[in-house]
Amino acid sequence: MRAVCLLSGGMDSSTLAYVAKDMGYDIIALHFTYGQRTEAKERTCARTIARMLDAVDFVEISLEHFKKIGASSLTDTAIPIEEYAGEQEAVPSTYVPFRNANLLAIATSLAEARRAEAVFIGVQTGDYPGYPDCRPEFIEAFQRVVDLGTAADPRITLMTPFVRMTKAEILKVGLALGVPYRETWSCYQNNDRACGVCSSCHYRREAFRAIGVPDPIEYEE
Amino acid sequence: MRAVCLLSGGMDSSTLAYVAKDMGYDIIALHFTYGQRTEAKERTCARTIARMLDAVDFVEISLEHFKKIGASSLTDTAIPIEEYAGEQEAVPSTYVPFRNANLLAIATSLAEARRAEAVFIGVQTGDYPGYPDCRPEFIEAFQRVVDLGTAADPRITLMTPFVRMTKAEILKVGLALGVPYRETWSCYQNNDRACGVCSSCHYRREAFRAIGVPDPIEYEE
Repeated sequence: MRAVCLLSGGMDSSTLAYVAKDMGYDIIALHFTYGQRTEAKERTCARTIARMLDAVDFVEISLEHFKKIGASSLTDTAIPIEEYAGEQEAVPSTYVPFRNANLLAIATSLAEARRAEAVFIGVQTGDYPGYPDCRPEFIEAFQRVVDLGTAADPRITLMTPFVRMTKAEILKVGLALGVPYRETWSCYQNNDRACGVCSSCHYRREAFRAIGVPDPIEYEE
Repeated sequence: MRAVCLLSGGMDSSTLAYVAKDMGYDIIALHFTYGQRTEAKERTCARTIARMLDAVDFVEISLEHFKKIGASSLTDTAIPIEEYAGEQEAVPSTYVPFRNANLLAIATSLAEARRAEAVFIGVQTGDYPGYPDCRPEFIEAFQRVVDLGTAADPRITLMTPFVRMTKAEILKVGLALGVPYRETWSCYQNNDRACGVCSSCHYRREAFRAIGVPDPIEYEE
């Protein structure tokens, strides 16, 4: 029983891979690079996690075309990364339009080619305000596209175990499964140590604080 | 009013771009390469068509990862291309799993980033037997994913003017619009002249024969 797991090397996708393994799946790790500033760090973390889980494969796919499409501060270095500035309704500048549809399409192609029965993606409650392609109804709609658009038998199931969980709840699951959070990278900035102030660092630290466990990585500030 | 048009350089997608232009859209041509044998020929044809239509942009995106995913004779040169051998129910060897979902995801990202209101894709009746991701219900399901997964306003509409047309009917439309079929490439083989016997050549010639017009390109046999 095999599953394609989207594994960025961040804390949530690493936890996701541990959950898939714990459910009995052999892991085909799928790691994306798309010209983001922190590409090398994320790759190292993702490879470490995949190795620790005895992944049957590690497939790295470059989405350089995200740069051609543009309109996001994660790939366009002319757009500064914002510090966390409270909950916001608007779509943040780190948004790559329709990104998850692109990632899920590739993951599904890979799953069909390798006869995997599931695709794991770590979308979660906290993603909803700004990212329309992280919501449960988006995933449900994409499942229908998978059912209609693949020839796979048995069918490929999109697995989103975190879709109604907060980051702190995900962290609690991961700690129970022994996820080595020291080996994960979350920060949007490409410094030696995590910046501690971008929105990704903010949410990570908030999750550790919420459950009263120290974050094993070091921060700039 | 702008539209992203998937433009491979074949006869159907070229006709599609002419239809979009005729409907009043400015064309953002989106051309994919994915390591197929006939990459250079298709690019030349697509650029010629885009130029003739005064396209506002020509975006070329490499899907090299299709090779990593594999399982198709269009990209895997170890798998021979079959000659046309009659109508078949099975999925043909030229199938890249879930390909149209990948292409539509990128096209939608580009449309949102460039504020285009439509995405044109040339799926058609003749594609259905073997390609599950060409059927009308697949496109309808993907439209829902677009509606839920983008922040675009006005919404992005998937346009499939050929979805219930045969190749001969599409050709008739194209001839009326003056599509220069001499500048299009359909063959799966990478020879100077089209092979005339692969399934793509077969269907092209059949369409020209059906409406009694000579095909302006030359064939090997």
